[in-house]
Amino acid sequence: MQPTARRGRPRKQEADARILDAALELLLDCGYDRFSVDEVAAKAQVAKTTLYRRWPTKDHLIVAVVARIQDEVPVEYSGDVRADLTRYLNEIVNGLNRMRQVGRATASGDASAGLVAEVAAAAARHADVGAAVQAMFARRNALVLTLLEQAREHGELRSDVEPGVLFDQLAGALYYRLLVTGRPIDAAYVDRLVTGALTGASA
Amino acid sequence: MQPTARRGRPRKQEADARILDAALELLLDCGYDRFSVDEVAAKAQVAKTTLYRRWPTKDHLIVAVVARIQDEVPVEYSGDVRADLTRYLNEIVNGLNRMRQVGRATASGDASAGLVAEVAAAAARHADVGAAVQAMFARRNALVLTLLEQAREHGELRSDVEPGVLFDQLAGALYYRLLVTGRPIDAAYVDRLVTGALTGASA
Repeated sequence: MQPTARRGRPRKQEADARILDAALELLLDCGYDRFSVDEVAAKAQVAKTTLYRRWPTKDHLIVAVVARIQDEVPVEYSGDVRADLTRYLNEIVNGLNRMRQVGRATASGDASAGLVAEVAAAAARHADVGAAVQAMFARRNALVLTLLEQAREHGELRSDVEPGVLFDQLAGALYYRLLVTGRPIDAAYVDRLVTGALTGASA
Repeated sequence: MQPTARRGRPRKQEADARILDAALELLLDCGYDRFSVDEVAAKAQVAKTTLYRRWPTKDHLIVAVVARIQDEVPVEYSGDVRADLTRYLNEIVNGLNRMRQVGRATASGDASAGLVAEVAAAAARHADVGAAVQAMFARRNALVLTLLEQAREHGELRSDVEPGVLFDQLAGALYYRLLVTGRPIDAAYVDRLVTGALTGASA
């Protein structure tokens, strides 16, 4: 709690923000393969060592960029769980579509799943990247799980509903389409998905 | 329909099976990164040209290996959709867990999602690999969608249920845990998932 430490923090956050902005811009331009940490340092006008101390590899930096895109999504229970879930899932769809743009012009194939798939592969390859990705999703998902618990307490959801399983069904369907089957995701699909999960399939 | 063509087919299928067996064995030993098409050709005792004619890249061959693991899963409506879905999803879990073993000993990180994530990334990078992966899943999923339609016709599922959306919720949750959140998947989770999707979340 020394004055120098307190003064130091905002400067550090400001540098982080500048780095992540530069990284996102470069990712959008270059795509995953041609993304370079050195170029980010140059663009953000910070020392390479500063950048590497904070994010030791390209993959760590990319996970931080993805986390920042996700952090822009607000999560709050309004009393109408259907509306809240629809809004939140549409934000995920929009975030995934923003990531779809990454390196699109330069990609040889369908870049739709590109960045998300590269992050998943990097997470599987390197334990520390995997831990960073999982921590990011655990933190984000905790907010929506709280929302679902509130909806359950308010009597909107069944008392025996498991928020974690329900959210896996919803977010999982979006990522499954993006990463595995390649089917499109949009607002109309989100509607059908939320209806299916809330109503249930049993006759 | 010449005799030579007919005689040729089983030999070709036999060679394919030998190649895919060798490829799976090597994948299990080496993992994705160190997997080499040349080594597969040597192990399967086929000419490299034969192998490259059939699967032009390492990624194409790996997709074929994954497709073969999936093809071992039977899909048939028994009159009890809950039992059928539970059995089928457990087969997916087992298949994913088999793929988890790929290169485990040599991986630096948590290889749990390794092969599946690498295939997703390759599908995103190369349009033709993406098309092969999507065709594989479309073919496999068509069988389970037929099963769900039969269950709907038999009155086990609601008449307005959308089989494609329902299956996305179920398979999607498994892949989401494997590729994104890193949470475990097992038979107990499959049970909670099927219960959630059949019952629905609304109070």
